[in-house]
Amino acid sequence: MKIVLAYSGGLDTSVILAWLKEQYNAEIIAYVADVGQQEDWAVIKEKALRTGASKVYVEDLKREFVEEAVFPAIKANATYEYKYLLGTSLARPIIAKKQVEIALKEGADAVAHGATGKGNDQVRFELTYRALAPHLKIIAPWKEDNFFTSRSDLIDFAEKHGIPVPVTKSKPYSMDPNLYHISYEGGVLEDITRSYDSSMFLMGKDPFELDDQVEMVSVSFEKGIPVALNGKRMDPVKLLQEANTIAGRHGIGIVDIVENRLVGMKSRGVYETPGGTLLIEAHKALESITLERDTMHYKQMVEIKFAEMIYYGQWFHPLRVALQSFIDSTQEVVSGTVELKLYRGNCVVVGRASEQSLYDTNLSTFEAGSNYDQKDAKGFIKLFGLPMEVFARKNPWFKK
Amino acid sequence: MKIVLAYSGGLDTSVILAWLKEQYNAEIIAYVADVGQQEDWAVIKEKALRTGASKVYVEDLKREFVEEAVFPAIKANATYEYKYLLGTSLARPIIAKKQVEIALKEGADAVAHGATGKGNDQVRFELTYRALAPHLKIIAPWKEDNFFTSRSDLIDFAEKHGIPVPVTKSKPYSMDPNLYHISYEGGVLEDITRSYDSSMFLMGKDPFELDDQVEMVSVSFEKGIPVALNGKRMDPVKLLQEANTIAGRHGIGIVDIVENRLVGMKSRGVYETPGGTLLIEAHKALESITLERDTMHYKQMVEIKFAEMIYYGQWFHPLRVALQSFIDSTQEVVSGTVELKLYRGNCVVVGRASEQSLYDTNLSTFEAGSNYDQKDAKGFIKLFGLPMEVFARKNPWFKK
Amino acid sequence: MKIVLAYSGGLDTSVILAWLKEQYNAEIIAYVADVGQQEDWAVIKEKALRTGASKVYVEDLKREFVEEAVFPAIKANATYEYKYLLGTSLARPIIAKKQVEIALKEGADAVAHGATGKGNDQVRFELTYRALAPHLKIIAPWKEDNFFTSRSDLIDFAEKHGIPVPVTKSKPYSMDPNLYHISYEGGVLEDITRSYDSSMFLMGKDPFELDDQVEMVSVSFEKGIPVALNGKRMDPVKLLQEANTIAGRHGIGIVDIVENRLVGMKSRGVYETPGGTLLIEAHKALESITLERDTMHYKQMVEIKFAEMIYYGQWFHPLRVALQSFIDSTQEVVSGTVELKLYRGNCVVVGRASEQSLYDTNLSTFEAGSNYDQKDAKGFIKLFGLPMEVFARKNPWFKK
Amino acid sequence: MKIVLAYSGGLDTSVILAWLKEQYNAEIIAYVADVGQQEDWAVIKEKALRTGASKVYVEDLKREFVEEAVFPAIKANATYEYKYLLGTSLARPIIAKKQVEIALKEGADAVAHGATGKGNDQVRFELTYRALAPHLKIIAPWKEDNFFTSRSDLIDFAEKHGIPVPVTKSKPYSMDPNLYHISYEGGVLEDITRSYDSSMFLMGKDPFELDDQVEMVSVSFEKGIPVALNGKRMDPVKLLQEANTIAGRHGIGIVDIVENRLVGMKSRGVYETPGGTLLIEAHKALESITLERDTMHYKQMVEIKFAEMIYYGQWFHPLRVALQSFIDSTQEVVSGTVELKLYRGNCVVVGRASEQSLYDTNLSTFEAGSNYDQKDAKGFIKLFGLPMEVFARKNPWFKK
Repeated sequence: MKIVLAYSGGLDTSVILAWLKEQYNAEIIAYVADVGQQEDWAVIKEKALRTGASKVYVEDLKREFVEEAVFPAIKANATYEYKYLLGTSLARPIIAKKQVEIALKEGADAVAHGATGKGNDQVRFELTYRALAPHLKIIAPWKEDNFFTSRSDLIDFAEKHGIPVPVTKSKPYSMDPNLYHISYEGGVLEDITRSYDSSMFLMGKDPFELDDQVEMVSVSFEKGIPVALNGKRMDPVKLLQEANTIAGRHGIGIVDIVENRLVGMKSRGVYETPGGTLLIEAHKALESITLERDTMHYKQMVEIKFAEMIYYGQWFHPLRVALQSFIDSTQEVVSGTVELKLYRGNCVVVGRASEQSLYDTNLSTFEAGSNYDQKDAKGFIKLFGLPMEVFARKNPWFKK
Repeated sequence: MKIVLAYSGGLDTSVILAWLKEQYNAEIIAYVADVGQQEDWAVIKEKALRTGASKVYVEDLKREFVEEAVFPAIKANATYEYKYLLGTSLARPIIAKKQVEIALKEGADAVAHGATGKGNDQVRFELTYRALAPHLKIIAPWKEDNFFTSRSDLIDFAEKHGIPVPVTKSKPYSMDPNLYHISYEGGVLEDITRSYDSSMFLMGKDPFELDDQVEMVSVSFEKGIPVALNGKRMDPVKLLQEANTIAGRHGIGIVDIVENRLVGMKSRGVYETPGGTLLIEAHKALESITLERDTMHYKQMVEIKFAEMIYYGQWFHPLRVALQSFIDSTQEVVSGTVELKLYRGNCVVVGRASEQSLYDTNLSTFEAGSNYDQKDAKGFIKLFGLPMEVFARKNPWFKK
Repeated sequence: MKIVLAYSGGLDTSVILAWLKEQYNAEIIAYVADVGQQEDWAVIKEKALRTGASKVYVEDLKREFVEEAVFPAIKANATYEYKYLLGTSLARPIIAKKQVEIALKEGADAVAHGATGKGNDQVRFELTYRALAPHLKIIAPWKEDNFFTSRSDLIDFAEKHGIPVPVTKSKPYSMDPNLYHISYEGGVLEDITRSYDSSMFLMGKDPFELDDQVEMVSVSFEKGIPVALNGKRMDPVKLLQEANTIAGRHGIGIVDIVENRLVGMKSRGVYETPGGTLLIEAHKALESITLERDTMHYKQMVEIKFAEMIYYGQWFHPLRVALQSFIDSTQEVVSGTVELKLYRGNCVVVGRASEQSLYDTNLSTFEAGSNYDQKDAKGFIKLFGLPMEVFARKNPWFKK
Repeated sequence: MKIVLAYSGGLDTSVILAWLKEQYNAEIIAYVADVGQQEDWAVIKEKALRTGASKVYVEDLKREFVEEAVFPAIKANATYEYKYLLGTSLARPIIAKKQVEIALKEGADAVAHGATGKGNDQVRFELTYRALAPHLKIIAPWKEDNFFTSRSDLIDFAEKHGIPVPVTKSKPYSMDPNLYHISYEGGVLEDITRSYDSSMFLMGKDPFELDDQVEMVSVSFEKGIPVALNGKRMDPVKLLQEANTIAGRHGIGIVDIVENRLVGMKSRGVYETPGGTLLIEAHKALESITLERDTMHYKQMVEIKFAEMIYYGQWFHPLRVALQSFIDSTQEVVSGTVELKLYRGNCVVVGRASEQSLYDTNLSTFEAGSNYDQKDAKGFIKLFGLPMEVFARKNPWFKK
């Protein structure tokens, strides 16, 4: 049996590697995905081999992550439950897709992941596996009967198998970093009556710890896709990194929410998405001058479903694809540049410009001389309100 | 003929008052609505009488405004096009409703307003008139053939009729203040490539002009309605005023957008809604622990339509009423308290508590010993993903 | 241990009764729900006792079924996937609710049902149990490890326990009848390339087997609820029975679909819902003259979600309740009478009348002399089309 | 001045032709669109010239109508307010688009149409004109101040200008026929308490007047587009004609509704859409086996908006285009064949087949030996119902 395991180099997936090998008497191919978290890949590779992997793939997925997932999500201003920009949700299908490709190339029998049975990530991994290669067996040790149920058993196993167990006290919460965001959850964060410790953040600083400094930045888009910062064209990965650096230094993009997981419970998540927040703020401002009104209003509704599907792991789902077609259609005209001012957590649009701008001072101004005939409004309001008036005549608001 | 005119005391409605009287040879009843803008009502009353009104009503609508419009909107987190909290949109139907009541009481033939033919307010006034008293004639002088089309003609008329014309240079934009917000639009703000002048704000300060200071505040709700600040119960008007004061001193709730008017063009609006922003932020946090997941997601969609209807002036519309029924139903369980930290434009939730909280650490924790069986997730993901898997089997993502 | 079992008197639930008693060494209370299927209740009761029940409840739920489930669904024109009127989906929560009430009254430890793990009914039973009495244990033998997996084992068990096994060849499909409908599925109906056998129907006849005869019928509603047929007021149960008789004799309301089950697969269902089809057809016609336009259009969207939730077993769900509030609000004005002509599967509206009718010939007529000013349409179209025109100017359809 | 007039050959547009010429001292180009109504084009052409047209275009738009409007609508099962298949709504943008093309080619200054100010067609014409050529002047004589307001004035004018006035009593309603449907409205049909006269129909017969006869027909689709009837591939126009013939002879596709016009009033319309009804019935059946569940449910919601936009004349609207992208994406898999049985108004699906069918007896069957593990349902229901259960625990249905 040959298993491709999504491997991170941490204690859990190292134990899983050794356990899978033993349990299934299988050849284990370790697969490490680089979606922008900063790690020493050589060390991780070495560790995987030492732990028993027959082979290790370290895959740089940053470009795919940004181009195939993050930027399509920005087109949709994708936000789950008002706040969460879906940094982890977007990475998982990209990671799982490459895992499937490796499994197919290697002729593997199974794919495995280290996500637990309580979170959303298991769903994102497994739905992607099943969509792309339904014949592959899926092994999720945390949900297997004979895997460890206590932490101490797991650590015993690790020690017996020569897997190094971190001796330093780990952080009192768990983290998931990538190029788009860092999520923080669990541990001390499970107490929803208390705020996070503001020293926790890594992509930026908490606004409450910043000095006075204001920075201006411009973001340019072509068909809804960010293409330049401050007038300088950059490739997607570089652009997102740069956006993170700029917005991070002003404490932009920190959110702290109680969210609804797909598996049914509420959980608390804190997220840092500095660049994404900047890009979406700019994108919405550009849409505000380029999208036709009803298109924008309907898109707002579609965005909610789109974000939900991403959160629920349904990236490779025909409905997600159809919603993407809708969104991409609207983005044909979303080109232009938005200027913003950043300051201690504030990200304020100060200017918008587009060759396709639908904003027309001549139409909107209350000054004389515009090409809008105010008398048209009489007929408009008459008929716009007709159904409501006819209704009110038959069903009076002021009852006699 | 007897006309009830929505009168503000400013130049325009004063001219309209005199013009209506002359034009229609009518008795004019001036009606002044106090929705929280700060004015010297005695002066305005006096001015109306001097300008020719037979009678003046000054109506304190603050309570009705907050209880019947603002708080129902907060239940819905009502926000137009991602940002605008609808301060003006919510006030108009309340103002127009009282105007109709006066017209009915006085046996008037017509109601009149001073809104132009280019904006949204005309719609909000006129739809309310027609819903509540469709038999009343509506006079909107700006859309009448023989009203003034140039500013200088209007000023000539004012001078001839002894209506004082302000000699000081007016502000380079127009404002509409009430208890919920102040809107700023027109004039220099019509240039969407430039930011506003931060000295403009009256309810609060621009975050960029504030000193370092952090303030904690708690907001308590009962069935979705704010009832207390910092643990102190207040009547609705007092609560909103206090929320404005607190949030205003931290520069909370300033937005600057290009929005889509109902009459078809895009326009730029800058809004200050300090208290409302604080209350909605707190309300969303409370909903995050008390609303069931699918209810919240569907409500997000309903909120978009609800906000659109308010913006479009459709308050007294059967669909708005039905949407309100939906929203009110969801709010039965939205009781509890949220704590927030305010600082230079940042309004950060730091704690949530509710007796009806659905957040259950025992369910969400990744620690051992919870009452959630991770193996349930296997069956769940299997069937949740079944339609997508069956689809993928027939329509493979990786084409051969 | 005390278990309340939803018992039908058939082979399967009889075996389950005996098996539960043996397996759990439990006292079994048999609960039989009368939702309008026609059975000899005394015989069933006797059989339950003979099979080992300590007690039998036969509950007449017809009134609750019609008043609490069917009529609220008719208000929503509730239809799943264009066609299915949800006859079984609506009955399950009513049946399960009473079962819970009995369990609470009897101080039982568990509730049990005989639905399999492949269908929708298990979900409808179990979600209702959990919503109403989450502390009760749920036993669904078909999903238990040590229940029978082969038909012959089950029959062996039956014979050993003196449970009569039908000797006559059973129908080549399964049926679920109640006051609202009969569903037919499984067996020969699993071949979706072939039609059903038209001799199968029990509530009516297949249109293809009917003689020429035309019947006129009128249906009257008050606030969306059917109250009279042919001008004769009837209590809800009687009315639905009478509607079934009338519509059934004209072959109204047969549908044959492939539908999507909640548990993930597609299945084929054939349904007879004669009375329901007639009532919904009449209801829609009445809504067409009493509902305001935008209300109706939005309600169409809500109806889809409402039907989905019912199909998915989410009756006792806060979102279903909130949707119901929306729907009930719209129905305040849906009173009046509709006349229909029935003939060989055709159910044609021939007249509508309501005191709250919004239909106004004077407005709609193309004849002269109406109180509608055609010139209003100029301004209306101008502004209605303005966003689209401005868009087209910037983004021309005919590219140069 | 040069005006292109949408000309039908009837009295009204003939009078308009002469009136426009006189009123504007203009050159009139008559444009006649053939969308499948059956007329003697040579006679109409001759009449236009005799009435004063400088030139006449008779354009066969049948192919464009079917390919660019009808079939995209069938993909969307486009239906307004439950019933109306949008035959007229779909034709107008196609007709108006060609009119604009002629105007551009001829260098005309204006386009004109004969639709009144009370109906929907004016909107469909004018929105299309403005989307495609916003610089063209639009003349709609019925809304012009100096056009005729009484029928007798119009007839006087006709007689003076040698325009033949039909002497025979016209039909007591108006009709609009094209390849997709015939609409009937106005006149005697304005009485909504009475049915239509069944001798009115032209595309088919009223089911109540048919003999006993049953006909089987199969419809094949590729990516949502009908391509063959009874296994015989046909070009789109031929296919729709043939579908009309087949379905018409069984009285399929007659609807009689009160609908909501865009301009605000309710009106009564009777429609014959035999072929369209057959095709959409078949299309829905094919979708039922090829569309993934959530995709279908979301599409149902999109279909409502799509139909509304078509009815409202918003064909050349960016939102309609984006919705079409969504719909087209879903249709990639909608290929296969559906068999139906037709009989006296009944159109019953009797078989469905598709290589992309997602229907899998092995999954859905209740028989043993399927590849579905019923135990998965336990975990599924557990987590599917978890949010609802947690909610119910905190907010009990049975209050103590």
